[in-house]
Amino acid sequence: MNIRFYNAKILTLQGDKTFSLTEGELWVKGDRICYIGDGKDAAKVCRGDEVIIWNREIDAGGNVLMPGFKDAHTHTAMTFLRSYADDLPLQEWLNKQVFPKEAQLTSEDVYDLSILGIMEYLTSGITSNFDMYNFPRSIAKASADCGFRTVFTSGLNNFVCSLEEMEEDYYAVNELSPLTSFVPGFHAEYTTSRELMEGVAKLAGRLKAPVWLHNSETSLEVAECKKRYGMTPTGITESLGMYEHGGGGYHCVWFEDADYDIFKKHHMTAVTNPASNLKLASGICPVKRFLDEGVNLAIGTDGPASNNCLDMFREMFLTTALAKVREQDAACVGADEVLYMATAGGAQAMQLPECDRLAVGKKADMIMIDLKQPNMQPENNFVKNIVYAGSKQNIKLTMIDGKILYEDGKFEIGFDPEEIYEKANRIIRRMK
Amino acid sequence: MNIRFYNAKILTLQGDKTFSLTEGELWVKGDRICYIGDGKDAAKVCRGDEVIIWNREIDAGGNVLMPGFKDAHTHTAMTFLRSYADDLPLQEWLNKQVFPKEAQLTSEDVYDLSILGIMEYLTSGITSNFDMYNFPRSIAKASADCGFRTVFTSGLNNFVCSLEEMEEDYYAVNELSPLTSFVPGFHAEYTTSRELMEGVAKLAGRLKAPVWLHNSETSLEVAECKKRYGMTPTGITESLGMYEHGGGGYHCVWFEDADYDIFKKHHMTAVTNPASNLKLASGICPVKRFLDEGVNLAIGTDGPASNNCLDMFREMFLTTALAKVREQDAACVGADEVLYMATAGGAQAMQLPECDRLAVGKKADMIMIDLKQPNMQPENNFVKNIVYAGSKQNIKLTMIDGKILYEDGKFEIGFDPEEIYEKANRIIRRMK
Repeated sequence: MNIRFYNAKILTLQGDKTFSLTEGELWVKGDRICYIGDGKDAAKVCRGDEVIIWNREIDAGGNVLMPGFKDAHTHTAMTFLRSYADDLPLQEWLNKQVFPKEAQLTSEDVYDLSILGIMEYLTSGITSNFDMYNFPRSIAKASADCGFRTVFTSGLNNFVCSLEEMEEDYYAVNELSPLTSFVPGFHAEYTTSRELMEGVAKLAGRLKAPVWLHNSETSLEVAECKKRYGMTPTGITESLGMYEHGGGGYHCVWFEDADYDIFKKHHMTAVTNPASNLKLASGICPVKRFLDEGVNLAIGTDGPASNNCLDMFREMFLTTALAKVREQDAACVGADEVLYMATAGGAQAMQLPECDRLAVGKKADMIMIDLKQPNMQPENNFVKNIVYAGSKQNIKLTMIDGKILYEDGKFEIGFDPEEIYEKANRIIRRMK
Repeated sequence: MNIRFYNAKILTLQGDKTFSLTEGELWVKGDRICYIGDGKDAAKVCRGDEVIIWNREIDAGGNVLMPGFKDAHTHTAMTFLRSYADDLPLQEWLNKQVFPKEAQLTSEDVYDLSILGIMEYLTSGITSNFDMYNFPRSIAKASADCGFRTVFTSGLNNFVCSLEEMEEDYYAVNELSPLTSFVPGFHAEYTTSRELMEGVAKLAGRLKAPVWLHNSETSLEVAECKKRYGMTPTGITESLGMYEHGGGGYHCVWFEDADYDIFKKHHMTAVTNPASNLKLASGICPVKRFLDEGVNLAIGTDGPASNNCLDMFREMFLTTALAKVREQDAACVGADEVLYMATAGGAQAMQLPECDRLAVGKKADMIMIDLKQPNMQPENNFVKNIVYAGSKQNIKLTMIDGKILYEDGKFEIGFDPEEIYEKANRIIRRMK
């Protein structure tokens, strides 16, 4: 498909971390952006001798084209537990509500529940997710079938999965589709034995791959880890040689000084999950400290059971607003920094350098923001409007790998939404 | 207009504070709800001998009808400062950015800017607001002209407005339209002299009316008030006889023990503004303590300059999520309690007892929630889905006083949205 967008405001990343707007055209040829400009010099720059046949020419109506959001930590298939188990402390919630229900899931359930989650991502302008859950191959297949981009990591722990299975998943998901990839990971230090963590470190070394895990989500987790090993979760995992090829942590709420140094040393990413951390009373991530230390940051929704929605607008607002109240400094962590985390920062975490920004040669993973809505008016500052006032309502179009999967409230993923809703409801009825 | 909704899920308030769903029909005759039930007994219950001619019969498609949200604290016309001045401490933000721009506003500007805000309320399912700003009559006229319901209070302080003007506004706005009302108020203790506050208290006594103000928004405000008067803002205002006919406070972040007693004694309401309090680094409101004390609570967005949007879904999520992290208790302040604050609690604060819930005889101020969206699926729990996962995207219809003002993304307020956006942009261009 070749698609020409004209009459657009195009949000590009200037230098390292500042966004700016260009008015003009953006052309998509196949899965990539082949031109950004005013349209006049397009023939020279892009076509050469070739005449592009447009499958569609879209009048953006002055709306903003920007890179899609990267949801850098989630458990997509947990859609089935949305609003089922709430208002409980993290451990009780996991042990009494989540784990017993999860034990009843089949791989077919997980496929269908993932499609429901993917639909929700699309409504929020999310073009790729960093997923951790059981049945990785079912989930990756759901993404590939919908045309959605997923980076997967393992939820391996003492009770679920094995090193051998993780390695099989690694090859299977990486080979399944250009849209799906897999990096090693495990659930968390508190659910995984030292021996098993050592195995993960070895495997990652052999695969020359990064490692991901839930890290320092609650103060209890850190306190118990220190009792066990005399080290923080970051400390013990690093001591096992876990991060020779980088990686990162989800949540990263309760960090100590030495933990930042480890993240810097190995060029790791901290993924913040602000809504989940509030709702489960885990705490507030020290986002400003991570910025000051120069650690890469990304933003995730966490799963729909703990959040309870997959909405990057809510997460972006919370990332800046919680930093402000935590530091008692209304000036800290600005809108540009947050938008960077939600796009390029996430792409770095997920090893998707081709999807990090709008530029010629990059993958066409992008969204159109509807400015003709009252919450985007007046146009004092587009980036601030998006980060502080944006909402799912503003997502006019979501494109992944050059294909439009969501436009004006309609899904183009090859599945009937009503049927996906009914399947999800059948799953929860069966479990009751 | 007589409108019959059928095939609906109707959210009603059982007993005091618990919501439940009835499947069936809801009929609107003129400005009021005249029937809720399965449709079979409707003739007896509602029509009597009269045959209702339906102007419209709407298939709700299994979606939820519920009372509209009450935005219990806002400064609507500040839409012009959305994303203009951000990332500054409260006092600097007010003095250097907000006040100088506000000084340039005309009453016509405020009329147009209010319409922009009203449009945004409608997209978020807000059916009435509790507004404080300059040019009350322009704002009330904007509400009346759009068909929106507004309760107004004065922003009187040492620099703006006088007691005489406030009294004139009181009569003018109360008499303008059945949709508009006015209660006495002033900006805050820290901007208003003791003498002026005494005047407000006297006027409120004479009018037998409640009094409203920004109260204990920042710790600095409370500390300085205590230095000045040896009392908290709640203490000094009560000592002046301010609350003989009730009233309440906006923000109420930094309360002391005796303040709760005063609020209880005078049956006052605390309005929480969680997004604004985060973004301006003011703090987190002790919502759980207010609930434990039995003080009525309501929820407000604050103005679009400090938030930066008018989105009750964001505020509802924050009200529960911030309480959880503040109290370090993931079980505290549940979804039903929050939904009550956002509807009936707000109606109580705003003296709108006829708009507090869906019931026969009540005003038809209500909204339809689109369940056929991925974030509302599966249907484990409707109230939790709305409070924890809801978004503006789910507002299918907003009705006020029996009239549909917003439906499927279209406004029915007698103004062209594009023209309102252009007017707002003209105002900010003029000020540059």
